[in-house]
Amino acid sequence: MSGDDAQILAANRAFYDAFAARDAEAIDALWARGAPSACTHPGWPVLVGRAVVMQSWRDILASESAPRIAIERPRALRIATDVAMVVCVERIGRTALAATNLFVHEEGAWRIVHHHAGPMQADAPEEPDRQLN
Amino acid sequence: MSGDDAQILAANRAFYDAFAARDAEAIDALWARGAPSACTHPGWPVLVGRAVVMQSWRDILASESAPRIAIERPRALRIATDVAMVVCVERIGRTALAATNLFVHEEGAWRIVHHHAGPMQADAPEEPDRQLN
Repeated sequence: MSGDDAQILAANRAFYDAFAARDAEAIDALWARGAPSACTHPGWPVLVGRAVVMQSWRDILASESAPRIAIERPRALRIATDVAMVVCVERIGRTALAATNLFVHEEGAWRIVHHHAGPMQADAPEEPDRQLN
Repeated sequence: MSGDDAQILAANRAFYDAFAARDAEAIDALWARGAPSACTHPGWPVLVGRAVVMQSWRDILASESAPRIAIERPRALRIATDVAMVVCVERIGRTALAATNLFVHEEGAWRIVHHHAGPMQADAPEEPDRQLN
């Protein structure tokens, strides 16, 4: 793993740590400010715009039904010099969700700019080994 | 809409046109070659790697059950100089899916590098107006 990959995965970890801590302010601090934001929570329509996305996190984290999420198999994929994504599985009890988290490098840090998570079906095909390009 | 946004949305349109035409070779031509690829079909685990992703499109398009998809409300969001995403709704009959399509600019063209689509629930909140940052 490159040092950059480690930093990107650490940013992804910090995002889920903030969620686990029910800390919307921490998510706000980890979220990009210079690039247009979006977010697709499981089952939700796409939210576009930083203010709307941040309000959604505050609402979700204020709810007693906010789930506990375990992350499995995070993989960092470097898309461009200042853009990377992490794909991973979010495990909520017996439910598995496929997640895409997009990061931009700004002000010396990797910050999340888009989150998209949705359910995986039990009969989905097995995941193949990683094979870049 | 900027000229760049129009080009990005045209690349998104070309991707869905290729799907509608059941043309896996056209999807291959539209897919990035210089950046690591990924794809999360609805309900599937994350596929990583260009060869694996292309095989998935060939398999899906060879199936008689490949759906007809109508695209609604595509929005281009410029993440970095050479990276953009399009968020949109995929309508398949009465089912709506939220889609994220990530594009990189390479060899003079916007090419798709990641696709993630998953179901939206009927009781999902209404989508707010676009509000960038």
